[in-house]
Amino acid sequence: MNTFKDATTEEINAVMEQSWSAFEAYSTFPLRQRAGFMHAIAAALGSVSETVVATAMKETNLPEARLKNELNRTIFQLNSYANACEQGNWLEARIDTAIPERNPPKPDLRKMLVPLGPVVVFGASNFPFAYSTAGGDTACALAAGCPVIVKAHPAHAHTSEMVADAIIKVARDYNMPPGIFAHVHGAGFEVGRSLVTHPHTKAVGFTGSYGGGKALFDWAAQRKEPIPVFAEMGSINPVYLFPEKLKQSPVELAKLYAGSITLGTGQFCTNPGLIIGMDNEDLQQFITALGKAIEQTAPSTMLHPGIAKAFVTNRNKALMQEQVDTVAVAQQEPGANQGIPTIASATAQAFLNNPVLHQEVFGPYSLVIRCRDTEEMLAVATRMEGQLTSTLMATETDMRNCASLVEKVKNSCGRIIVNGVPTGVEVCLSMQHGGPFPATTDARFTSVGADGIKRFARPLCFQNWPNSLLPDELKDGNPLKIWRTVNNELTKG
Amino acid sequence: MNTFKDATTEEINAVMEQSWSAFEAYSTFPLRQRAGFMHAIAAALGSVSETVVATAMKETNLPEARLKNELNRTIFQLNSYANACEQGNWLEARIDTAIPERNPPKPDLRKMLVPLGPVVVFGASNFPFAYSTAGGDTACALAAGCPVIVKAHPAHAHTSEMVADAIIKVARDYNMPPGIFAHVHGAGFEVGRSLVTHPHTKAVGFTGSYGGGKALFDWAAQRKEPIPVFAEMGSINPVYLFPEKLKQSPVELAKLYAGSITLGTGQFCTNPGLIIGMDNEDLQQFITALGKAIEQTAPSTMLHPGIAKAFVTNRNKALMQEQVDTVAVAQQEPGANQGIPTIASATAQAFLNNPVLHQEVFGPYSLVIRCRDTEEMLAVATRMEGQLTSTLMATETDMRNCASLVEKVKNSCGRIIVNGVPTGVEVCLSMQHGGPFPATTDARFTSVGADGIKRFARPLCFQNWPNSLLPDELKDGNPLKIWRTVNNELTKG
Repeated sequence: MNTFKDATTEEINAVMEQSWSAFEAYSTFPLRQRAGFMHAIAAALGSVSETVVATAMKETNLPEARLKNELNRTIFQLNSYANACEQGNWLEARIDTAIPERNPPKPDLRKMLVPLGPVVVFGASNFPFAYSTAGGDTACALAAGCPVIVKAHPAHAHTSEMVADAIIKVARDYNMPPGIFAHVHGAGFEVGRSLVTHPHTKAVGFTGSYGGGKALFDWAAQRKEPIPVFAEMGSINPVYLFPEKLKQSPVELAKLYAGSITLGTGQFCTNPGLIIGMDNEDLQQFITALGKAIEQTAPSTMLHPGIAKAFVTNRNKALMQEQVDTVAVAQQEPGANQGIPTIASATAQAFLNNPVLHQEVFGPYSLVIRCRDTEEMLAVATRMEGQLTSTLMATETDMRNCASLVEKVKNSCGRIIVNGVPTGVEVCLSMQHGGPFPATTDARFTSVGADGIKRFARPLCFQNWPNSLLPDELKDGNPLKIWRTVNNELTKG
Repeated sequence: MNTFKDATTEEINAVMEQSWSAFEAYSTFPLRQRAGFMHAIAAALGSVSETVVATAMKETNLPEARLKNELNRTIFQLNSYANACEQGNWLEARIDTAIPERNPPKPDLRKMLVPLGPVVVFGASNFPFAYSTAGGDTACALAAGCPVIVKAHPAHAHTSEMVADAIIKVARDYNMPPGIFAHVHGAGFEVGRSLVTHPHTKAVGFTGSYGGGKALFDWAAQRKEPIPVFAEMGSINPVYLFPEKLKQSPVELAKLYAGSITLGTGQFCTNPGLIIGMDNEDLQQFITALGKAIEQTAPSTMLHPGIAKAFVTNRNKALMQEQVDTVAVAQQEPGANQGIPTIASATAQAFLNNPVLHQEVFGPYSLVIRCRDTEEMLAVATRMEGQLTSTLMATETDMRNCASLVEKVKNSCGRIIVNGVPTGVEVCLSMQHGGPFPATTDARFTSVGADGIKRFARPLCFQNWPNSLLPDELKDGNPLKIWRTVNNELTKG
């Protein structure tokens, strides 16, 4: 039970004033100091892991093993983004030295990324640790040099409060400016709107629903001074079954996907909600095997009653659409707030003609689209909205034979997987967790991996500065030994 | 005289359909082919330089030498961004290799930037070449792999048409897909709105007024699928005169700034429109010398009657504000459509209390702000809106003595110059031509320098791809020999 009161406007104003003061101090801290602070937060999370996991179990219904894993992932993110922060490649340091004898003289120009300012982070319901209070957005913002204001997700407000307390204690121990991290409760949308529209807020990070993310984006765009919002709003993550691959192993593919569809009660933004194949015997075998596996899967409890209710509503709405067949439903009766694993099927024509079938059903549900031929698969891919991921279950021959389909799919997603499942998002520099709208509000950024730091930073160019007054990152002699582009050559010299 | 008809909705739809087809082809072209196309456009501009410069002289009233310089700059931009395109650093290629024995197994992940899609570019009135038809935005978009649709600026529509013809001829000679480049006329805002709101448009580049840029931003944000707009909307480019520096050479500084304020009839987005100093004898000497120099400067013809009229209106509005003194006006009577060089002055309190004095007066005008002390200079800097540039006229001692002022100034601009003038924007990788709103709509990007390519590209992650089907940029063995980050290490290996 969330027993916290919503922050008042006065409280939010006070938080934002302090955050701005913290920004003016923290933005000048050396990379090493930022990294040290982040490593210390990671260590602090480790030391409170038992109590925060226990609290999160009560608030989210997620199993202990999953939450422990997620907390470890959160600690890993903090440590790895701290390392990236200190390594400094993300700064995009560039130097063009002066040519005084040129006519006109060329000035000395040096550029690096600097922090945007206070960042408001919204906790995600489905990741109480990794995309919440001390999660990826917070880690990226701190690495960039920005203070963070977290709006706790009301569904796990106590977990959030405990994590926030740990961060604030570390901040005090590390003599961080007061306001480097703030934690705000708000069950309704008013607190979120006050935070996003406050003049001192300079960027927003969000992971959640389309409705929530789009509201933040609109508020931010309508400010007197618009600010960037990176909202990851989920997607249906289409999986394309190519003919040769499907023929080779329809039953194995079905088992693989039954697992991916129901993993974590389907509560991942990379959950495969759409499977597209050519309507032939192989696809029928796949559908039959997928249906059997789903029937045997036990329903499990969803994150909170609101999500469970939305799953029932959206699933039923999808199943009620014309030309949609229910293929399989888990045989075990669902308990209270449990999501019942479900597979449906429809023709490509039905999908092409009905936008409802393009909408995410957040939970253990997937829709199989039956296409007459590869032309119809291409038509489905052409009509596809922006996605976080797309998956090709395909042999190399398949991919060569359907090259134009492969190209279409590339143009509508942020990550394109061959012969795997979209669930499971590796934390590393090569990851792209983002994608064309409506998957996110800006396809040019990621919320996973250290490149996510760049969401919260902007280039600042120093022209004709005395060397001694430049930031260390840009000084002659490269005292920090970071990679820099000097007169168009990448060098550590 | 612009004798072209506005494009109709049907024409725009046809252009955008063709542009989308071109995108699907061009986005797969190798970097070398994109670069070759851009070099060829540069060469073609060189071969038509006499006729396009002659036409631009008639349309813009700009002198021949300036236009020749600007055309050379445009050619340089195309060539240097083409080189950057082929060099491939901007792709941010990252590879994390698989660790199959890990539990769970780590997949192979590879990421690079890919083009967003068709880019609409709006020609700028004050740069008929460098920020118009074949200008920086066009060069960046082509390098990124995006087709371009240019909306010609009506004030130099014939120049734009000639440059467009040259590009289209090159595109044909190079077997580029039809639609790789399109040119559209529109005197009113309807054509611009149709282009920005078309579903096939995926990004917008603009250089011009706040009103124009903000309208594009709003249209783009209100689309069903919002798209990024990089609008560079000018600024007042504050210049801070620090006490020791001012004492050393008030008259020389005044002469330097008289030149910068009136360069190109003040029609640069980096024109120094605000000069801030402490009210003492040194500042009085500076103001007197600046006034004398401005009185001796001959009025010159502005780009077009609309800009000349706006200058008169905005200048008179500024001079009419309470507590604003007119310091100097050019003695020579202005002719038709000429901008009359003008210097005004006001106290810091007047500036702090009157938002009108924060607004750009596009033309040969600057306002000197007299502060009682450094505290008041700090108050002015604190209240400053986002700027393309800020300039510190300061000794090293000044900068150390007023460190908090220096930090404030850093937080409100994209480029910070020491002991120089903001006019003159070097084309190189270290340049940042952008800044916090309202200078631009997204401070995280630049419109000058090859980093501007990134405005029009997004990361795409390839998971578990067969090596032979990956783009060459990401293949094992690095066939293109570009810099890539492999398992967190930058390498060409």
